[in-house]
Amino acid sequence: MAQPLSFQQVILKLHQFWADQGCAIWEPYNVQVGAGTGNPATLLRVLGPEPWRVAYVEPSVRPDDGRYGENPNRMQKYYQYQVILKPDPGNPQELYLQSLEALGINPREHDIRFVEDNWESPALGAWGLGWEVWLDGQEITQFTYFQQAGGLELNPVSVEITYGVERIVLALQGKNSAWEIDWMPGLTYADMIYNEEVEYCRYYFDIADVEALKKVYDTYEREMGRALEGDSLISAYDYVLKCSHLFNVLDTRGAIGVTERAVYFRRMRDMTRTVAKAYAEKREALGHPLLKMKDYWDIDRTDILPVFPQPSTAPADVLIEIGVEELPAGDVDDVIAHLIKAAPALFEQAKLTHSGIETMVTPRRIVLSAKQVSPRQPDEEQIVKGPPAARAFDANGQPTQAAIGFAKGKGLDVSALKRETIDGGEYVTALVKTEGKPATSVLMEVLPQLIAGIKFGKVMRWNETNVAFSRPIRWLLALWGDTLLPVEYAGISSNRTTRGLRPYGSPELSVKSAADYFRVIKEQGIILNYEERRAAITQQINALAQEINGTIPNDPDLLDEVVNLVEAPTALRGTFEARDLELPRDVLVTVMRKHQRYFPVEDANGQLMASFIAVRNGDAEHLDKVIHGNEHVLRARFSDARYFFSQDIKKPLADGMKRLETLTFQEKLGSMRDKNDRVAKLVAPLGHLLNIPEADIQIAQQGAQLAKADLAKQMVVEMTSLQGIMGREYALREGAAPEVAQVIFEHWLPRGAGDQLPQSAAGRIVALADKLDSLTGLFAAGLAPKATSDPYGLRRSALGIIQILAHSQTDVDLNDALQIAAGLQPIPLNAQQQQQLKEFLIGRLDAWLNEETDAPRDVIRAVLAEQGLNPARAYRAVQELTKWTQHADWAVILDNFARCVRITRPEKVMYSVRPDAFTESLERDLYAAYESVAKQLTPSSGIDEMLTAFALIVPAIQAFFNTILVHAEDKAVRENRVALLQAISNLQKGRADLSELSGF
Amino acid sequence: MAQPLSFQQVILKLHQFWADQGCAIWEPYNVQVGAGTGNPATLLRVLGPEPWRVAYVEPSVRPDDGRYGENPNRMQKYYQYQVILKPDPGNPQELYLQSLEALGINPREHDIRFVEDNWESPALGAWGLGWEVWLDGQEITQFTYFQQAGGLELNPVSVEITYGVERIVLALQGKNSAWEIDWMPGLTYADMIYNEEVEYCRYYFDIADVEALKKVYDTYEREMGRALEGDSLISAYDYVLKCSHLFNVLDTRGAIGVTERAVYFRRMRDMTRTVAKAYAEKREALGHPLLKMKDYWDIDRTDILPVFPQPSTAPADVLIEIGVEELPAGDVDDVIAHLIKAAPALFEQAKLTHSGIETMVTPRRIVLSAKQVSPRQPDEEQIVKGPPAARAFDANGQPTQAAIGFAKGKGLDVSALKRETIDGGEYVTALVKTEGKPATSVLMEVLPQLIAGIKFGKVMRWNETNVAFSRPIRWLLALWGDTLLPVEYAGISSNRTTRGLRPYGSPELSVKSAADYFRVIKEQGIILNYEERRAAITQQINALAQEINGTIPNDPDLLDEVVNLVEAPTALRGTFEARDLELPRDVLVTVMRKHQRYFPVEDANGQLMASFIAVRNGDAEHLDKVIHGNEHVLRARFSDARYFFSQDIKKPLADGMKRLETLTFQEKLGSMRDKNDRVAKLVAPLGHLLNIPEADIQIAQQGAQLAKADLAKQMVVEMTSLQGIMGREYALREGAAPEVAQVIFEHWLPRGAGDQLPQSAAGRIVALADKLDSLTGLFAAGLAPKATSDPYGLRRSALGIIQILAHSQTDVDLNDALQIAAGLQPIPLNAQQQQQLKEFLIGRLDAWLNEETDAPRDVIRAVLAEQGLNPARAYRAVQELTKWTQHADWAVILDNFARCVRITRPEKVMYSVRPDAFTESLERDLYAAYESVAKQLTPSSGIDEMLTAFALIVPAIQAFFNTILVHAEDKAVRENRVALLQAISNLQKGRADLSELSGF
Repeated sequence: MAQPLSFQQVILKLHQFWADQGCAIWEPYNVQVGAGTGNPATLLRVLGPEPWRVAYVEPSVRPDDGRYGENPNRMQKYYQYQVILKPDPGNPQELYLQSLEALGINPREHDIRFVEDNWESPALGAWGLGWEVWLDGQEITQFTYFQQAGGLELNPVSVEITYGVERIVLALQGKNSAWEIDWMPGLTYADMIYNEEVEYCRYYFDIADVEALKKVYDTYEREMGRALEGDSLISAYDYVLKCSHLFNVLDTRGAIGVTERAVYFRRMRDMTRTVAKAYAEKREALGHPLLKMKDYWDIDRTDILPVFPQPSTAPADVLIEIGVEELPAGDVDDVIAHLIKAAPALFEQAKLTHSGIETMVTPRRIVLSAKQVSPRQPDEEQIVKGPPAARAFDANGQPTQAAIGFAKGKGLDVSALKRETIDGGEYVTALVKTEGKPATSVLMEVLPQLIAGIKFGKVMRWNETNVAFSRPIRWLLALWGDTLLPVEYAGISSNRTTRGLRPYGSPELSVKSAADYFRVIKEQGIILNYEERRAAITQQINALAQEINGTIPNDPDLLDEVVNLVEAPTALRGTFEARDLELPRDVLVTVMRKHQRYFPVEDANGQLMASFIAVRNGDAEHLDKVIHGNEHVLRARFSDARYFFSQDIKKPLADGMKRLETLTFQEKLGSMRDKNDRVAKLVAPLGHLLNIPEADIQIAQQGAQLAKADLAKQMVVEMTSLQGIMGREYALREGAAPEVAQVIFEHWLPRGAGDQLPQSAAGRIVALADKLDSLTGLFAAGLAPKATSDPYGLRRSALGIIQILAHSQTDVDLNDALQIAAGLQPIPLNAQQQQQLKEFLIGRLDAWLNEETDAPRDVIRAVLAEQGLNPARAYRAVQELTKWTQHADWAVILDNFARCVRITRPEKVMYSVRPDAFTESLERDLYAAYESVAKQLTPSSGIDEMLTAFALIVPAIQAFFNTILVHAEDKAVRENRVALLQAISNLQKGRADLSELSGF
Repeated sequence: MAQPLSFQQVILKLHQFWADQGCAIWEPYNVQVGAGTGNPATLLRVLGPEPWRVAYVEPSVRPDDGRYGENPNRMQKYYQYQVILKPDPGNPQELYLQSLEALGINPREHDIRFVEDNWESPALGAWGLGWEVWLDGQEITQFTYFQQAGGLELNPVSVEITYGVERIVLALQGKNSAWEIDWMPGLTYADMIYNEEVEYCRYYFDIADVEALKKVYDTYEREMGRALEGDSLISAYDYVLKCSHLFNVLDTRGAIGVTERAVYFRRMRDMTRTVAKAYAEKREALGHPLLKMKDYWDIDRTDILPVFPQPSTAPADVLIEIGVEELPAGDVDDVIAHLIKAAPALFEQAKLTHSGIETMVTPRRIVLSAKQVSPRQPDEEQIVKGPPAARAFDANGQPTQAAIGFAKGKGLDVSALKRETIDGGEYVTALVKTEGKPATSVLMEVLPQLIAGIKFGKVMRWNETNVAFSRPIRWLLALWGDTLLPVEYAGISSNRTTRGLRPYGSPELSVKSAADYFRVIKEQGIILNYEERRAAITQQINALAQEINGTIPNDPDLLDEVVNLVEAPTALRGTFEARDLELPRDVLVTVMRKHQRYFPVEDANGQLMASFIAVRNGDAEHLDKVIHGNEHVLRARFSDARYFFSQDIKKPLADGMKRLETLTFQEKLGSMRDKNDRVAKLVAPLGHLLNIPEADIQIAQQGAQLAKADLAKQMVVEMTSLQGIMGREYALREGAAPEVAQVIFEHWLPRGAGDQLPQSAAGRIVALADKLDSLTGLFAAGLAPKATSDPYGLRRSALGIIQILAHSQTDVDLNDALQIAAGLQPIPLNAQQQQQLKEFLIGRLDAWLNEETDAPRDVIRAVLAEQGLNPARAYRAVQELTKWTQHADWAVILDNFARCVRITRPEKVMYSVRPDAFTESLERDLYAAYESVAKQLTPSSGIDEMLTAFALIVPAIQAFFNTILVHAEDKAVRENRVALLQAISNLQKGRADLSELSGF
């Protein structure tokens, strides 16, 4: 293609391409939508059994993506090209790639990748699995197998292809910014819509009247209901879209708090669901008119009749390849882990021997190779017991009908029966020989079970078989030596064809034999084995880094992921602008790593260099184009980040607090600002409670003032994972003391399982205060987490408190802390809620101890019974107690303690020991022993000290029980003895309840 | 084209076609718009000097066009294909016709016509001139030269082409209903959008919450202001569109009354204007960036340098043809009328003789033919007076500088000067000879003036010359014999090429000479002469009617219009479904005549037949296709009418009154129902005042109950001209008495100038009551008409009252009628307003009398001074008085009357005659004469009786004045004489004020 297509030509070409595929060409919707999915031609038409094929362009409005026209790639409005194929035609990826070729994108010259992306729209009650399609690192398309829409399960599933037109044209025309691309000769994209872009941003960010538009939302929601009731589904649906747009505007204005957002989403989802349900019912009532298109749109599937191979007499190699559309990286791992166990087990169960099994998985193929598999199962003989001999033969010794029937049933002549004595009785028996089946037959039977046995975290359906898998299975290669092994799964029949590497156009390649397969695959440059791919990548990326005297920071997670994203890795190095290095390192790394799966490069001083390393799928041909594309993407992303950064530092961090007044934390608990204020107030009393030095408390207080301020910063709005990090960064830039800035960062910690904990005392106080505030406040608001939902992440808050206290060994009774925190809430935490909260915390501590320590359940139970609200002590206690339970003489110790406890348990009264009232010396001895150890113990003494003390008096206890009758007839004597044992029993008080232990 | 294009292919083809013409391809707007014009790609981009070319499809939403999917052509949403060419490329009609050919519409096989249609959108502050394009009678496109948008004058003008995609596809595919057309193979238009259509109708007609949406409108209007203030013009504009859609919904719900509508329109217009103004200013501030496209989009105009023809020596025929895009029928008439006078005058003024001038006008050409025009103007001689001889010659008789200079100025040698005595003084004179110019030169100069002199009711601009004309001038043919006459006008240079008939593709035809022109034109089948065309059409249509034993009702207006719509008429006859004849005749005729310019056909009994006759432009080739197309159109229109009719008769007429409660007449005056109630109440007192028999009053009362009820009927909403007609029809169908039904019809009369008047007494009462109610009510509401605006048509109401009273000779003083009517209004008519209203009525009567009678101004003034509020009497009076003023002895009569009046005028007191106090016999004689005639006069006596009476006493008056001194010294005598003359003067009282007459 000499001249790259213009923007408008790309759209026309796509129209033509998809019209040629039998799609109806539709128009953008005349209501503002956030995506082509919102157009009823998608969201409603995908419902129900009627087939549907449609293509259209959709100017998609996403107010909060507005950048006042300052970003090369990101705007509040961009053009999607949307295709729906329902049902899945069987080759949608191929059709899609052909459409790119029609536009002039030669797959050989680019790195085109299907990168896992699971799409979900809570407002539309819709989700699906699929990919972002990357062109040289740039996302150019969303490719989704729609599983649900409007809350309804989809059957058949629809394939949704959503092109980002600007980005494709950008790549075609080789421009650096969408604004520069040619809409048509002489007219740029900017000429067409730049001014409007800037103006819309003004409206969405600065102008829209929040209160007034909220009222319009309410009105439209009511209109939706009226329309629905009046059987005007499409009007109802329009109002759903209008509400959705209004919500987006309000949200962009920053007018929607966390809870409010949840409420809005629920409202939108409910609306969509109601409409979708009504629509589906209506189509049914209409008799699903578009079923008439079934033939026109149906898949032209050639059904291959399985040809039964001739049974083999010699062992042969078996090769199975399950060809799939790109598996998510995590799923590749799962498949490997599963098959390593399942494949050998399968052969064992199938009674087929072999000389070695190997399983190999890439994003596009799951391969099972078994060497020298036995041609047949072994024959087997089995003696089967028949009727008693007495019944099997008549008086004349002639076989009766019973014997004849039994023999016949086993396929034998009656003469072949024998008489044998079994369990003392005489029976007829038959020797039944089972002939081993040919391996080919067995494999045809069990291989589908093997595939079906692969489980994934998330599965999808794609065709009429409704088989579920991670991604669609598109071909099956199954060979017994050089013979085709007929297998069928998910509507696909096996053949002897594999498909090559994507950038080579996934050519269909015929495979002569199981052994030949590896030659064919190797020729395509595909590395089947995970470890080999990993090694190749490691070598390549390190080499590239070294070329510029750099190193790649260790990042095994990223490496693991990249290994699972390619079949034929070729690393490449690109650069970005040096000025981008002025951005905080965390920002740069987050963008490179999380968004692009690029490896950052460090210099000798550990400073980031203005380079990145990526790994393409394919060989080195046209690598320059691929590098150029990837550089462009990163440039755009960093531009975005710079934009946020420059916006953010225009206003001091403290200004953010004002903004947080408009961000609702929770309706009853006020704004995020209110929350921050409460946390700040909580710092001092909490610090005192925790015995933190006054200097640290003061630092904590300063940090707390700005703790949440960065939530108002755009960088954080955009990349939530940077919350706290940016707060620290901005605070430092404003000249805050480093230890104060650190508090801002640390107060968010830990952010999830495995995350670091606050290191400074000041950070700990604020982190605890924040979480205590959330817990007390939200429990008071009746928002304790439920089994399936924990929208405020209270489990994480509780766990955070536990981890901080336990690991910093901060001995505090959470009862006290909760009381202080509750006192600052605008609404009371009533007794019942308080109880509920404590049980919740104990439950979390229980779970954490269980995971964190090797302590047996009973030990944890014993400790929690007494120290459930003091994580630090509990943590120590379970460890100590566990050790004690492993002592050789533990049984003796526990038994003696248990005697003291058990005998006093029925007593209703706690008696006081009257030392002068003891009548026996053994009593006195025991008391003296008790006294001598008890005075060593303080309230902070732990299990160790307590049990050590107790162990010392075990002999005295044994002596006591050997001689003394506790229940003496003299009431005073009895009570004094009980008092002594009660005192001993009470040694565990506040430490553990040993009666919870097994063996007690 | 073997297979007609599908709906989606038509759109793609149009995209391709217009992209090839350099248009940017744009997308439908993501806000509901009523037309592609609303898309900012039209409404905003046409502003200012920047060039622009764009094409896009636009699903256009017009809620009140919804028919629940029951109409084959009409829906609440249809697809426009919109093209904007700015500036006019010079050949937009040709481009458009080429685009139709690209779709497979062969102009040779169809009747494609450009039928005047002047487009205006008050809400958008926009208007333009142009056409509907008809394809076999079906409107398929709006073609407009945009003159104004957003209240701003457009410069350059934009060409707007708006295709109705459905109708084009319908014709292409030969379907009977849009619902049946193929969107793509296998999928019909109905498959795509039928259900939605029905559902939208439900929402718009039955569901939408009026009050809530009105509030949203208010909110959006405020948002528009905020957005504008914040420099977000596009958001502001979006809100204009959203308001506009909301208004349409409210209107469709029937929630907008007449005044409210006006208010809404004003609000929308104001919004649009503000945004448009801001947009234009902003583009200017940006430096009009798209001016860069000027070269790319500029018109490739070949400038022909005028070649000056060699002066001719012999007379020659002159032929001028101004080629235009289709002129409106009315403008054809105007041009003919103008040229018949102007063309000869021009030649006379140009001093060119000829042997006959003919002007011929068709919709596409204005032709001026002059035979045997003289080759040159005649030479002329003129004696010019110079300086006085005394100054011209010095003492020596030598010419001075003054003489030399004078001679030089006239191009003469000083020796050529003569001395002549002029007006008694001696001067030098020069004989100046002016050589006549060649005719060709003169014509080149004056012909542009001739064209410029043609005036039209409405004119437009189209290109950069900003010349104004009825429609664009596209070519100029100008020949002097066989020589090209170079003329330039409106940026066009003349040449010797004419263009043939549209259906033949308007071929460019070279013309050899002025005489050859007629041959060329005749070969095209074009009839240039209006009368000839008229005769041809008359003959053809009558012949077609006769073939089915029918006749065409006489309808000269329709015939005149049709004559001006074609160049080469060929009549055709089509049929419609017999069941459509069940519709009221008025409906059928209105549809055929007004919408389609078809001639209805009557049978021998004067009953309509199920046929129509139309006249196509072109020959009879493929007439079957044309007939088929026209039949389809009429079928669709009648289907629409049937739909309305069936809807209307579902509910009794009286039910409409309930509906009228929601139709605001005027805010202060309540609903249309309130108005109807007032009119009904007014009937009895008004009837009594007019002395109408009680029986008629009762009929009037019954009719008045339902007078406005048909306003709620859909047929009337759709075709306002049927108001009253449908009311009568529906009343009769419900069994109302014919005279009552007639009242419903008649109360609207007269509906305009020249319309019939109510014939029944009952009809008259209600017609008067209705108008009196409007006048008193609206004046009370402060809504008297202003110079430029009369939104309630109060001038027509006043005129109606005058005509009814005058022609029915109903003698009534409107003072009384107004008082009764005012008494029924919900708000008072104060004294000042009452005075204003009376003056308004007198003013109207004045104007009407002036037009209706031959009375001189002074006569009318005289009568109005006394009878301005009694139209019937005034009407009679001016006629009588006019006659009197034409009597031979009128001067004497008037003079004697004047003497009586003048001499008594200074008196402040009216004296009573004391017959016994006269002192002279002449006094007594005069008094006796007066007494004898005065007692013949009653208050209802008119001018005739009064003046006849007066004439009888003129001799007595003359005798009196000859002898009697009125101002006698005796006060009593004097006062008695004055009293007598006052009595005589008073004869005119209540009849006229003769002092207003000239000669008084």
